[in-house]
Amino acid sequence: MNVEKQIQGKVYKFGDNINSDIIIPGRYLIYIEPGKLAEHAFEVLGEGFPAKLRSFDVLVAGRNFGCGSAREQAVTAIIGLGIKAVVACSFARTFYRNAINAGLPIVDCPEIYSAVNEGDDITLDLASGEIHHQDAKYRFPEFPDSMRRLLELGGLAEYLKSQFQGERTGY
Amino acid sequence: MNVEKQIQGKVYKFGDNINSDIIIPGRYLIYIEPGKLAEHAFEVLGEGFPAKLRSFDVLVAGRNFGCGSAREQAVTAIIGLGIKAVVACSFARTFYRNAINAGLPIVDCPEIYSAVNEGDDITLDLASGEIHHQDAKYRFPEFPDSMRRLLELGGLAEYLKSQFQGERTGY
Repeated sequence: MNVEKQIQGKVYKFGDNINSDIIIPGRYLIYIEPGKLAEHAFEVLGEGFPAKLRSFDVLVAGRNFGCGSAREQAVTAIIGLGIKAVVACSFARTFYRNAINAGLPIVDCPEIYSAVNEGDDITLDLASGEIHHQDAKYRFPEFPDSMRRLLELGGLAEYLKSQFQGERTGY
Repeated sequence: MNVEKQIQGKVYKFGDNINSDIIIPGRYLIYIEPGKLAEHAFEVLGEGFPAKLRSFDVLVAGRNFGCGSAREQAVTAIIGLGIKAVVACSFARTFYRNAINAGLPIVDCPEIYSAVNEGDDITLDLASGEIHHQDAKYRFPEFPDSMRRLLELGGLAEYLKSQFQGERTGY
């Protein structure tokens, strides 16, 4: 996954505490392919899931997104759905770092939460640390250099490949 | 809530591990009224919830329904939505007992899970321990006498009232 610096798209909005059993049930952890995992992502929520989510680009969520059992497949499943970024009031720590490692842009921005609705169009500018929604701008904390570099390269695996190819990174 | 011995209605189907933060987020535990709690039940799942669920009568779920934080308001919120019963492959223990105490019929019946779809019509016969769906019958374990009595009276509070009114129950 090669991460764009500007991400634009349609929002699906969740509430708080969406956990990893909701994102991808434990019995599918035998899979590692984004496509296969995405077939079952959020399926526990009822008929029409996950298909419905494929018409959205960005997940916006409340507090503690990705809590529960730590599983990197939760991130992979979301990527498999074609979701380009997740914006939440806060993230579970392992989910957050798994997302960065997989190259999925993930942004803490509690200010925007109450302003957006399902289907709204937003633009994330990763370089400037801003989200644009209607006429408003919201700032989010800049990524530390190490994470920014992982995201730009498309995740930890790509970063390691770039190192093995002799690129000096300074970390 | 006065429990009918035959419960008939339309199914909404969830997957496994639907937890109490999904059923009713912790910040609403300041409420105890079924109507008020129901306004927020399952709202974290996205736009259209909980309104969508009001057109269904019976929740069918996979394993471990009601897991997570033990809160009796999870049951109250479901009652407030007008749901008449929950059928699941299995329940978290505290949710199960909270449901009986609140007079919400709750049935372990893993066999029916894969057979039903959203919108199907099912009938639960609490007296005979059977669920009817299309042309099939599924058996579920009979309630122990103590629980059956609580359900018949509409929950623990009604049971206690009946005792204070001098009724002998033998427990």
